[in-house]
Amino acid sequence: MSRVDARCAESFARQGLMQTLRAALTEAEDGRAVIEAPISEADSQQHGFAHAGLTFALGDSAAGYAALTLMEAGQEVLTAEMKVNLLAPAKGSTLRAEGRVEKPGRRLMVVTAEVFDETGARVALMQGTMVPVGGSAG
Amino acid sequence: MSRVDARCAESFARQGLMQTLRAALTEAEDGRAVIEAPISEADSQQHGFAHAGLTFALGDSAAGYAALTLMEAGQEVLTAEMKVNLLAPAKGSTLRAEGRVEKPGRRLMVVTAEVFDETGARVALMQGTMVPVGGSAG
Amino acid sequence: MSRVDARCAESFARQGLMQTLRAALTEAEDGRAVIEAPISEADSQQHGFAHAGLTFALGDSAAGYAALTLMEAGQEVLTAEMKVNLLAPAKGSTLRAEGRVEKPGRRLMVVTAEVFDETGARVALMQGTMVPVGGSAG
Amino acid sequence: MSRVDARCAESFARQGLMQTLRAALTEAEDGRAVIEAPISEADSQQHGFAHAGLTFALGDSAAGYAALTLMEAGQEVLTAEMKVNLLAPAKGSTLRAEGRVEKPGRRLMVVTAEVFDETGARVALMQGTMVPVGGSAG
Repeated sequence: MSRVDARCAESFARQGLMQTLRAALTEAEDGRAVIEAPISEADSQQHGFAHAGLTFALGDSAAGYAALTLMEAGQEVLTAEMKVNLLAPAKGSTLRAEGRVEKPGRRLMVVTAEVFDETGARVALMQGTMVPVGGSAG
Repeated sequence: MSRVDARCAESFARQGLMQTLRAALTEAEDGRAVIEAPISEADSQQHGFAHAGLTFALGDSAAGYAALTLMEAGQEVLTAEMKVNLLAPAKGSTLRAEGRVEKPGRRLMVVTAEVFDETGARVALMQGTMVPVGGSAG
Repeated sequence: MSRVDARCAESFARQGLMQTLRAALTEAEDGRAVIEAPISEADSQQHGFAHAGLTFALGDSAAGYAALTLMEAGQEVLTAEMKVNLLAPAKGSTLRAEGRVEKPGRRLMVVTAEVFDETGARVALMQGTMVPVGGSAG
Repeated sequence: MSRVDARCAESFARQGLMQTLRAALTEAEDGRAVIEAPISEADSQQHGFAHAGLTFALGDSAAGYAALTLMEAGQEVLTAEMKVNLLAPAKGSTLRAEGRVEKPGRRLMVVTAEVFDETGARVALMQGTMVPVGGSAG
């Protein structure tokens, strides 16, 4: 049985940037989401490592879908703010971002994300705020 | 005369993600850098706006090149941490990110970036830390 | 004529921590606020500099009062999140925090603050989000 | 047997702000530290809750001492940057801050902290960077 909430799957499919990055939403339920993507030369920075922008995009999206699993029907999720600390250069050819809701709320959801490389090493730690838009809270 | 520091131009050309995003480094000197990029469906999030990941990648890179203009020869720049507050959805078809060094330093450089949409509206405010790697401080 | 909004003055007077720190709200109008406080041994960290906690408290409060100047009658302000980059150790015996609203909003206000020491050197840069509570948006 | 590293205890005793806040360092070893403090009217904000500045000061210090437990002899710790997300108003009369090193490093240490109120509810989540000063890396 899929562990991806239908609303999240549908929203993810409309995200052009996630398709550009060849990312897949592999889990999204109960305040948690996982996104996986390959690292290729097309996403690198000048040292050949994964670019902070790729790491950020995956972690931010994982955190956003984690939040969306807890929102009311009809709502969409927007990032209000997000911080990333980069811990280590990514090794290998894939990244895996895990997002979690730390504190749900009707107006604000505090989220975190961790991004891991192919060796399982944690390459980034993120903390931020998601807001619901549309629906009855919009 | 170009307002792009040669070292920054050379580094930017090696950034796969910036090429994927069709971004251009249009200024880089004296602790300041500007990057411009189109917004297309390929970079969108689920509402059709520019994805936070695109906005972040441009602002982070502008801040990084601003820092690189002040680093010693032989050094490269890495993002240690970066925070973004999203202010408004981007309108139009281009984004412009302006990065600035707020506090230079041998071990840490505090930077900020602002990202503007095609109408000139500010869509994101960023604040973070760049570190030099390699060279005599590495 | 006072440049301190009456609602801000009344709110500030109820802040025990600001009194403990002997801080004064010297400006608060039109999306901007200034707080000044002495640095004493009682606020120091282990090197005898002003503690990051003092710097944060002043900048956070200045940003909060800046936001309050733009809120509806009956609303109070709460910090949702705040980030500080420390730029330099504070010199001299006073700190001055200037808060600004970067983006007003009914549900979220994006704010920044700068903290300066007695010599006028900028010792901290802050960026965060204030939310209104109570009133019609509560 | 004390779970407080001697260097941390000695450093903590010199922190005027921690004494002003009547805070106690109750654990500090192996990349982890705990600080506890009473909440009184003297530390309140305008709603009678613990001020964000108090919460920040305790969490920042817990994270800093967590980092100090892993630094070389002769080094001191400084906060380079720190972010806090406030999750809930503090209930009861005490706060407990737990700091952890997420990624040790010779030049930068990435840290997190959680702050809990007397009921055990988590009231703040923090993420930041500590830097060693002095010693051979200074």
